[in-house]
Amino acid sequence: MDVRVIELKNGYGIDALTVSERPDPVPGPNQIVLELRALSLNYRDLLVVEGTGRWRAPLPRIPVSDGVGVVVDTGPGVSRVKAGDRVSPAFYPAWIDGEPDPEKMASPLGGAVADGLMAQYAVAHEDAVVRVPAGLSDEEAATLPCAAVTAWNAVVCRGRIKPGDTVVTLGTGGVSLFSLQFAGMLGARVIITSSSDEKLARARGLGAAAGINYRKRLDWPTAVLELTGGAGADHVVDIVGNLNDAVAAVRVGGAVAFVGLLTGMKTEVDLVALMGKSARVEAVDVGSREMFESLNRAIAFHGVRPVVDKVFPFAEAAEAFKYLAGGAHFGKVCLRF
Amino acid sequence: MDVRVIELKNGYGIDALTVSERPDPVPGPNQIVLELRALSLNYRDLLVVEGTGRWRAPLPRIPVSDGVGVVVDTGPGVSRVKAGDRVSPAFYPAWIDGEPDPEKMASPLGGAVADGLMAQYAVAHEDAVVRVPAGLSDEEAATLPCAAVTAWNAVVCRGRIKPGDTVVTLGTGGVSLFSLQFAGMLGARVIITSSSDEKLARARGLGAAAGINYRKRLDWPTAVLELTGGAGADHVVDIVGNLNDAVAAVRVGGAVAFVGLLTGMKTEVDLVALMGKSARVEAVDVGSREMFESLNRAIAFHGVRPVVDKVFPFAEAAEAFKYLAGGAHFGKVCLRF
Amino acid sequence: MDVRVIELKNGYGIDALTVSERPDPVPGPNQIVLELRALSLNYRDLLVVEGTGRWRAPLPRIPVSDGVGVVVDTGPGVSRVKAGDRVSPAFYPAWIDGEPDPEKMASPLGGAVADGLMAQYAVAHEDAVVRVPAGLSDEEAATLPCAAVTAWNAVVCRGRIKPGDTVVTLGTGGVSLFSLQFAGMLGARVIITSSSDEKLARARGLGAAAGINYRKRLDWPTAVLELTGGAGADHVVDIVGNLNDAVAAVRVGGAVAFVGLLTGMKTEVDLVALMGKSARVEAVDVGSREMFESLNRAIAFHGVRPVVDKVFPFAEAAEAFKYLAGGAHFGKVCLRF
Amino acid sequence: MDVRVIELKNGYGIDALTVSERPDPVPGPNQIVLELRALSLNYRDLLVVEGTGRWRAPLPRIPVSDGVGVVVDTGPGVSRVKAGDRVSPAFYPAWIDGEPDPEKMASPLGGAVADGLMAQYAVAHEDAVVRVPAGLSDEEAATLPCAAVTAWNAVVCRGRIKPGDTVVTLGTGGVSLFSLQFAGMLGARVIITSSSDEKLARARGLGAAAGINYRKRLDWPTAVLELTGGAGADHVVDIVGNLNDAVAAVRVGGAVAFVGLLTGMKTEVDLVALMGKSARVEAVDVGSREMFESLNRAIAFHGVRPVVDKVFPFAEAAEAFKYLAGGAHFGKVCLRF
Repeated sequence: MDVRVIELKNGYGIDALTVSERPDPVPGPNQIVLELRALSLNYRDLLVVEGTGRWRAPLPRIPVSDGVGVVVDTGPGVSRVKAGDRVSPAFYPAWIDGEPDPEKMASPLGGAVADGLMAQYAVAHEDAVVRVPAGLSDEEAATLPCAAVTAWNAVVCRGRIKPGDTVVTLGTGGVSLFSLQFAGMLGARVIITSSSDEKLARARGLGAAAGINYRKRLDWPTAVLELTGGAGADHVVDIVGNLNDAVAAVRVGGAVAFVGLLTGMKTEVDLVALMGKSARVEAVDVGSREMFESLNRAIAFHGVRPVVDKVFPFAEAAEAFKYLAGGAHFGKVCLRF
Repeated sequence: MDVRVIELKNGYGIDALTVSERPDPVPGPNQIVLELRALSLNYRDLLVVEGTGRWRAPLPRIPVSDGVGVVVDTGPGVSRVKAGDRVSPAFYPAWIDGEPDPEKMASPLGGAVADGLMAQYAVAHEDAVVRVPAGLSDEEAATLPCAAVTAWNAVVCRGRIKPGDTVVTLGTGGVSLFSLQFAGMLGARVIITSSSDEKLARARGLGAAAGINYRKRLDWPTAVLELTGGAGADHVVDIVGNLNDAVAAVRVGGAVAFVGLLTGMKTEVDLVALMGKSARVEAVDVGSREMFESLNRAIAFHGVRPVVDKVFPFAEAAEAFKYLAGGAHFGKVCLRF
Repeated sequence: MDVRVIELKNGYGIDALTVSERPDPVPGPNQIVLELRALSLNYRDLLVVEGTGRWRAPLPRIPVSDGVGVVVDTGPGVSRVKAGDRVSPAFYPAWIDGEPDPEKMASPLGGAVADGLMAQYAVAHEDAVVRVPAGLSDEEAATLPCAAVTAWNAVVCRGRIKPGDTVVTLGTGGVSLFSLQFAGMLGARVIITSSSDEKLARARGLGAAAGINYRKRLDWPTAVLELTGGAGADHVVDIVGNLNDAVAAVRVGGAVAFVGLLTGMKTEVDLVALMGKSARVEAVDVGSREMFESLNRAIAFHGVRPVVDKVFPFAEAAEAFKYLAGGAHFGKVCLRF
Repeated sequence: MDVRVIELKNGYGIDALTVSERPDPVPGPNQIVLELRALSLNYRDLLVVEGTGRWRAPLPRIPVSDGVGVVVDTGPGVSRVKAGDRVSPAFYPAWIDGEPDPEKMASPLGGAVADGLMAQYAVAHEDAVVRVPAGLSDEEAATLPCAAVTAWNAVVCRGRIKPGDTVVTLGTGGVSLFSLQFAGMLGARVIITSSSDEKLARARGLGAAAGINYRKRLDWPTAVLELTGGAGADHVVDIVGNLNDAVAAVRVGGAVAFVGLLTGMKTEVDLVALMGKSARVEAVDVGSREMFESLNRAIAFHGVRPVVDKVFPFAEAAEAFKYLAGGAHFGKVCLRF
């Protein structure tokens, strides 16, 4: 019996996404088979679907890195999980622990090298999956592998954030809202930016101490300075990649976690400003299984729920991608099987 | 006009505390004069009063390190504070920033080397005082210099604590309750121990996730293991100094902040257990002015109030020390002018 | 065809070591078979052979964690190494990377849980072996898995050592000499202790800046203070476990890496002294495969040779253990096949 | 009696440097007077002299931050140094210890805010000077405050460098040669770049493992990859500010210390490459007095000598600046009184 998948088959672009079939997966030694329940979409999935730059994959390719499923079959030697467990595959299946390196990051799911999870069933190594918190719905759990791990790595692992520090997150996409939630857990004061006052109000409901409408305040870094007595934020989680803005908003000795490049592949950096801030800019590219497990523990303890904006049926994947591309979301866009 | 002080004059012990007079303080270059408003007592002050071990001071000596006052006079060159500011002197006046060293720790207030604050007025270097949060009463603010800075250093600076981590604090004295509050700010799950169920209930009201009555559970480290699925706590803030208990309660790779020695000057350590836990034991001895300023910012942002157990009038200092020695307190014992 | 091994069969103690046979090893998926070339002995192997405390293993048990061999067979799916590679198994086969935890440390070689390497052939997971530097002899390479990894973890990973810092290592066993070599690579000034002036002279030949004969200076920590202008050492690598000595020798804010317990399972700690030093005591229990790989790179770059004291033929394992127990060695005691 | 100085009086530029006189300095409380012996020039001094951008100072201004002198007078209360001591003023007089902040960095010597050291005598706060190693000549000692502290901060404090790591330094100016020396102390393998084979040979004499002539290899980052088995360097100390090159040369998870901007005030950054490397870019702006003291200890222990390229008499300051601007130097350009 074959498995229904959605893949890029003959070309790139949202409209090139095609329902297709793959052979029924058979788990090898230490492998498991998952029946997928829900997926979530990331901006990076859009780059893969569009075939952009280094995200252009050979075809056919099943996109989407993030999902949650139930273990339905286990290969020889499997001991970390068992049939019936609800798990998520890690974004980087080989990055278990420790610092990043090319070997650990060789095969991200749903990218240029390996298929992703837009499928009824998927195979994974038992070491590459993580049990997700029981209190989350499937859609909520499906939001974690890329966006939440990235935010955890940026804010908790790299951030050196103390209670009372000020953290700025840009926009209201998945990584930014998780950053808001994790920075809040660490006792930080969070400032969030958005083009919409209504989204800023919702972000306040999630714990943001202040919001800046960057449509009204094109000089939002100046607004951050105003909100911090002129000092600047201790930390900026920059999903945009406009590093000059992030550096302008940060205090002397502060840090920028560069976590995404929403507005372009290049940016001009003012070296005098960077030096003047003695700033640290750290590129954060998702994270390890250990980080995923840590954040699950924190989410479960705090009873925090990932923010799901909208859920589309699996068959409407193309609509979901278009909705994501439109940028109107607050939190995550998901698919449900 | 002379200044009224309470000092150890002819001997040691609570009953040797004597009301006395000192010459009116005149601020030198970069010095200020404080009119004291409130003091708080620490176990270390008791050691000084009793003349115990390395805490035995030459006489006469004004004890007590922690207090809050108002700047009433400033010497030449003072620019960091001005008359009318409400400030607290730092426990280690010369430890402004960075790592500890003997020079920075040479003159703790109210100890073997320097007079403390049991006085109507006191002189301090402008660099050695810290503005305290406006929202705190004088008594609340007076609790910060030793106990809160110690807890901040242990939990925030040394702790490497992540949201969802488990932190254990021992007893309900000042350092432990501040540790509870700071660990809570960092998103940790806090377990507290006490000999009293009523105190445990109050600690839960301050955010403790669980309490262990160590009278009923003499094997409280085992109780910690039970509460952590057998793993042990990520961090123990040990005010007692019974390191074997702390190590038994901690997970493999975990940390013990050794912050006080309530039950003796020596302890036997099980080296096999210590190695088996790959544990880190870090002696934490108050902290820097920078830590004090950081924690003030956090306290102000979170609206956290230090826990004041009981306030005595200045003239009843001896009663206050006896009350502290009795160990019945929950939080801090204070004096008010 | 069976494999010749030396094992504890009917009891504990050096004289209980027995030549025996085990079935020919067959590599499972992702496993390899090594033909052993050389072994090295650690004090911990002696504890295992003697059946001491938590090192007492069920019988039969093949002791010895450290060895080097050549890959002679590979199971299905092996890709990290190939036949002919010279490799060493990691002390903790499951500790690949990151921080210690019980799962990673569950099965140290040649201990209470798993067989070791006193055998012609041994099986290992491909992920649990490390290629050793080409410039080392088999005996030299065999010294690395426990002693060198422990020293690397203590000095390089945990030590926070800067050029010009003073590091003290105790005695002239394997861990201490590796600590001397690694601390020297980091630009530290190393002081070593020994009961023998002749060994101290040899240690100076390896780069030690000073030596203290602890037979002549029973108060060797005082001698360290003298050699550091009264300040104390920045770091002590303590293989002995007499923590009071280590703390006495360290500066305020300094660190003790507790790496071994040569003189007893317990020690009394002076809490006042520990607090007075604001010291950090960190138990270091070998380390990860990643550390092993890092130190190999450093050894290869620096052309450093492990110090091999004496090599015994495999058949004379008992004599080798007796020689180790005698404590006359300078560096490592090895076995050669 | 007045003091002879060289200052910018009526305008900017090397030719605007004018011999002038200032009143004889009188030390205030906790201040000292230095008789200057030697100075060294930094690229930043050239920016000040030229009146470039944020380095443009109000006139008159005495430039030059780095020098060494002898204490000839002390004001009331001075205890850290005494007449006759040979000391260097710290680049940032108020940055004693800990992390950077605006207050600590408010008054760098010889810049937009405060006068520098091109003078027979200069006043300094006793806390803002550092005793220099006895083994260094005046000219050698004068090279330390800016260039050596910057390199120490970048390599030792921020670098997280392990023995065997590969460090790249760009060019053969002061910061790069100090970085070479400090990275060498830490056991790193250092690759240096230069436009001159002769300078590369000299750098090898100082311990560089390899050199890349960036005139012959415009793609020097590729040459770094070749020299590191394709992996890239662990650390790049980038005095140039061409961040794309630095990022291209670094390994996944590696670090760039951005320490200077020799070729322009702005640079374009390839965000995809930065993310692909999970790289950390840290702007390093000189450092603290504590760093200065640490590096002095290391230099003294290792017997390392700063590299002085050429010494000009004080009266030929303009020639010295022109020589520096020409870029032909290897190491530091100094002035002697």
